[in-house]
Amino acid sequence: MNKSAKLRELFAKKDLIRVVGAHDGLSAKLAELSGFDGVWATGLEISASYGVPDASLISMYQFLEAARSMNEIVSIPIIADCDTGFGNAINVMYMVKRYEKAGIAAVVIEEKKFPKQHSFLAGGRQELLRVEEFEGKIEAAKAAQNNADFMVIARIEALIAGWGQEEAQMRAHHYVDAGADAILIHSKSKDPQEIIEFVNNWDKDVPLVVVPTAYPSLREKEIKELGKIKVVIYAHQGFRASIKAMEAVLNKIRKDGGIYDLGELIVPVNHVFDLQDVPQMKENERKFLR
Amino acid sequence: MNKSAKLRELFAKKDLIRVVGAHDGLSAKLAELSGFDGVWATGLEISASYGVPDASLISMYQFLEAARSMNEIVSIPIIADCDTGFGNAINVMYMVKRYEKAGIAAVVIEEKKFPKQHSFLAGGRQELLRVEEFEGKIEAAKAAQNNADFMVIARIEALIAGWGQEEAQMRAHHYVDAGADAILIHSKSKDPQEIIEFVNNWDKDVPLVVVPTAYPSLREKEIKELGKIKVVIYAHQGFRASIKAMEAVLNKIRKDGGIYDLGELIVPVNHVFDLQDVPQMKENERKFLR
Amino acid sequence: MNKSAKLRELFAKKDLIRVVGAHDGLSAKLAELSGFDGVWATGLEISASYGVPDASLISMYQFLEAARSMNEIVSIPIIADCDTGFGNAINVMYMVKRYEKAGIAAVVIEEKKFPKQHSFLAGGRQELLRVEEFEGKIEAAKAAQNNADFMVIARIEALIAGWGQEEAQMRAHHYVDAGADAILIHSKSKDPQEIIEFVNNWDKDVPLVVVPTAYPSLREKEIKELGKIKVVIYAHQGFRASIKAMEAVLNKIRKDGGIYDLGELIVPVNHVFDLQDVPQMKENERKFLR
Amino acid sequence: MNKSAKLRELFAKKDLIRVVGAHDGLSAKLAELSGFDGVWATGLEISASYGVPDASLISMYQFLEAARSMNEIVSIPIIADCDTGFGNAINVMYMVKRYEKAGIAAVVIEEKKFPKQHSFLAGGRQELLRVEEFEGKIEAAKAAQNNADFMVIARIEALIAGWGQEEAQMRAHHYVDAGADAILIHSKSKDPQEIIEFVNNWDKDVPLVVVPTAYPSLREKEIKELGKIKVVIYAHQGFRASIKAMEAVLNKIRKDGGIYDLGELIVPVNHVFDLQDVPQMKENERKFLR
Repeated sequence: MNKSAKLRELFAKKDLIRVVGAHDGLSAKLAELSGFDGVWATGLEISASYGVPDASLISMYQFLEAARSMNEIVSIPIIADCDTGFGNAINVMYMVKRYEKAGIAAVVIEEKKFPKQHSFLAGGRQELLRVEEFEGKIEAAKAAQNNADFMVIARIEALIAGWGQEEAQMRAHHYVDAGADAILIHSKSKDPQEIIEFVNNWDKDVPLVVVPTAYPSLREKEIKELGKIKVVIYAHQGFRASIKAMEAVLNKIRKDGGIYDLGELIVPVNHVFDLQDVPQMKENERKFLR
Repeated sequence: MNKSAKLRELFAKKDLIRVVGAHDGLSAKLAELSGFDGVWATGLEISASYGVPDASLISMYQFLEAARSMNEIVSIPIIADCDTGFGNAINVMYMVKRYEKAGIAAVVIEEKKFPKQHSFLAGGRQELLRVEEFEGKIEAAKAAQNNADFMVIARIEALIAGWGQEEAQMRAHHYVDAGADAILIHSKSKDPQEIIEFVNNWDKDVPLVVVPTAYPSLREKEIKELGKIKVVIYAHQGFRASIKAMEAVLNKIRKDGGIYDLGELIVPVNHVFDLQDVPQMKENERKFLR
Repeated sequence: MNKSAKLRELFAKKDLIRVVGAHDGLSAKLAELSGFDGVWATGLEISASYGVPDASLISMYQFLEAARSMNEIVSIPIIADCDTGFGNAINVMYMVKRYEKAGIAAVVIEEKKFPKQHSFLAGGRQELLRVEEFEGKIEAAKAAQNNADFMVIARIEALIAGWGQEEAQMRAHHYVDAGADAILIHSKSKDPQEIIEFVNNWDKDVPLVVVPTAYPSLREKEIKELGKIKVVIYAHQGFRASIKAMEAVLNKIRKDGGIYDLGELIVPVNHVFDLQDVPQMKENERKFLR
Repeated sequence: MNKSAKLRELFAKKDLIRVVGAHDGLSAKLAELSGFDGVWATGLEISASYGVPDASLISMYQFLEAARSMNEIVSIPIIADCDTGFGNAINVMYMVKRYEKAGIAAVVIEEKKFPKQHSFLAGGRQELLRVEEFEGKIEAAKAAQNNADFMVIARIEALIAGWGQEEAQMRAHHYVDAGADAILIHSKSKDPQEIIEFVNNWDKDVPLVVVPTAYPSLREKEIKELGKIKVVIYAHQGFRASIKAMEAVLNKIRKDGGIYDLGELIVPVNHVFDLQDVPQMKENERKFLR
């Protein structure tokens, strides 16, 4: 079964699909091993892994390579953060064909102008496309896909841009009519009330996706009670933990003048080998090296 | 000044050059921000970031891309772990030309057979080349470089392979005669005595490089006292800390059913923005966006 | 239907499958437009397109990228020239998983040692693996594939290496027993007799593949009469024509001091636009740009 | 001497610099062997080599990879066609840093909106940026470069867009004031008069670049007499010859049912080996393989 079909099946069977951000094969594997249902190939993490702002600088090629590397390693589906679709409706069609061929289960495109900026950037440009323009991009994406199960998720940035609930609802309705398979409703409000209001007003059959980065107080239990939300994405918490840990250990090595006191701060080398599937390789060597 | 010249200058001016492993632009940047003198573009980390064994599977192209991404982001020199040189002496020449053009300061090649396996793999194949064959590879590397400052470091695996001190010394001498700019003497012994013995017997002018992963008790203070050692590489401690942290946070999110209690385990999003040089980008926007 | 299934269908339905070499999306597209049944993603062309010898220098990553670019553009199946499998049996397994995920229909691996050299290189190293070693690689390849239709073709270099008909037959038999889906019997003899003799002695059900580069006098009519041969690969004739044409035009421009007299030597720009599917893009713009 | 310095030297010493389009290492090498002074890493050829429209679909990463592959193989400087700079002024800065680090001598950016379309596309969108916006991009490019010799060339599309001579002159003046190192004045008129008029009115010290694709009747002799023009780019004639040749040979193979009658249409395999520098490799094998 292809990964898009797997994701469709999760939508059908699970009350809430838990998805977590990753930026390479290893972080995707850790997501799978921790029992998450899917991986979010997040633009912020991938850009940051290059040390580059999340502002349409890293190429689609590189985002796709990162998503592909994840998909080669895990058996759970990948949902790819595809920003604006990397340009206009023609860019979206080009993108969808490549992501689909790479076995990515779903793509998320957002209604911002290219080049975009990260939604949480203080003072960032958060300009939205005209509704018709983004409708055209959704229709183009759906027309470009080959496999009926592939999913195109429309990401609403109207709340982020400060355009209000009514505008956000109106836009989401238009995108559903244009063919979106799900709506990711995004918010940078620390109070989950903004999202809760949107969800309560939602009257379409198409499921919702939320990313509670800004409003971490909203728990899965409450998300399920709200209904209508099928996917929760934990966007980059693992990544932010990895930065904290790397900084701590690198600074400690500098201060200590050595690695003699790292103790429980790091995993043993053998644990890395296990994450690399070395035991499987050793078994294959026994079978096939002659 | 190019990075090879910078590294030569560090060799001339510092008593001990501290180098730390990285696998992408971000981890390289953290190395620089922590005050390390250089970055080790390590095969283990890069392979593991793909979720793939460190066994000549990831292509030279991908290792080079990783090293290049690091070099684009940091101002300190990159020393690249180039395994066996990815084949024979001809592969080495091809490799050296590409790494040099990418601005990498130095490459390390090891005397193992292609395809190699990680030196610490229990029961791993650790077959060495004939001395003459590896001499040819060192000579080829030196002949291929364009910039006189570019450094080729020969990595001795004879102790790892269990061939003893005498063999290791003999090989190191041959590689120096073939043109090696430094000798990385590797050991998997938990007791630093094996390395100390090698260093004490070392009678060439060419400096030594050590990687105390297996023998963390050897501190910089002692390394300096030994003399002759110019570089200490902390190969992948930051990376192993990042795995520990990601596992902990991902498991906690699963257990908690949400991200409401991560507190001090993760850095704030704004910290990520800073590592991405967003403030510089904002300033450039003010200057150049019209 | 996936491309491996398509290729299996061609094996079932066609008396002779005509396959032609390509090195990028455009040359693959020209192959399809000329009515060929499949594309040979040839190591020689791909290496040469980089200006680099065909000697295990270009990375697997780059060969795969070239094959993938072809597969994104054409509807006919791609058969990929995978040299030695880029190392040992473990490298082969890694390779097969990636090529299969990229939608490549079949891979060809050859019994030479890594790093290999092009078979037609005068004085080139043409060392063969031990039979058991290559058997292990074939078994590994078959064990690594996921899709039952994916094909692994074993390429016999024993005639090229001068080991004679008997050895070639013996090796081919072993590789069929190890699971090879077809046997590519290669020859550098200008006289097709060497190939004809091999074919006449072939007593296995598994089909043969030939590459008449060295013996162009052997026509499809005769190949069909021989029976047992299911695929003819025209390895790089289009490419060699392109070099001839580029040299002629570049030299003419230099001599003429301008491009005023190129006339029929070049296709019009609009023809390039058509090969890029610009008309399809214009139609998509009318539909989806708003 | 770096390639930017080499290009500056050509500007200083030659009356007319002859540059020819290429899309990969091999076509760049053919350019060098034919005696051209530089290589034009052209967006049209590179896009077309993927079988994809020249419309901001192929990623910057891929354009850069193509330019880098060329630069690794030839000793003459590469001038890269960088379209719109792949976005806004921030994208331009990101791009300039990468191209410069890759050893590319000069970049050309054009005043069109992203996503762009090829200038010769009938009915294509040819929308121009506001002058101030493109000025900002030129200033950003110059601020981003590290090596003082690196060149940023501004490409005027005002004649293509039908905005007339006055507008074209005004824009070119602004871009020179913003720091452009040369002005590429583009025209799709079959009559060279449009270009000649622009050149005759040009009163700045900054040199001009022309691309006589649409007006092939303008010869180098006349270009030199016009003065002020320092570079002529023959954009993709070699490439268009290669398509013609590949089509002819592929069709002939299909019609003939074999490759027995290709004769003078193709170069011998040994010629390909020479272009791959196999003789150099054989010599290196003699020196370094033991």
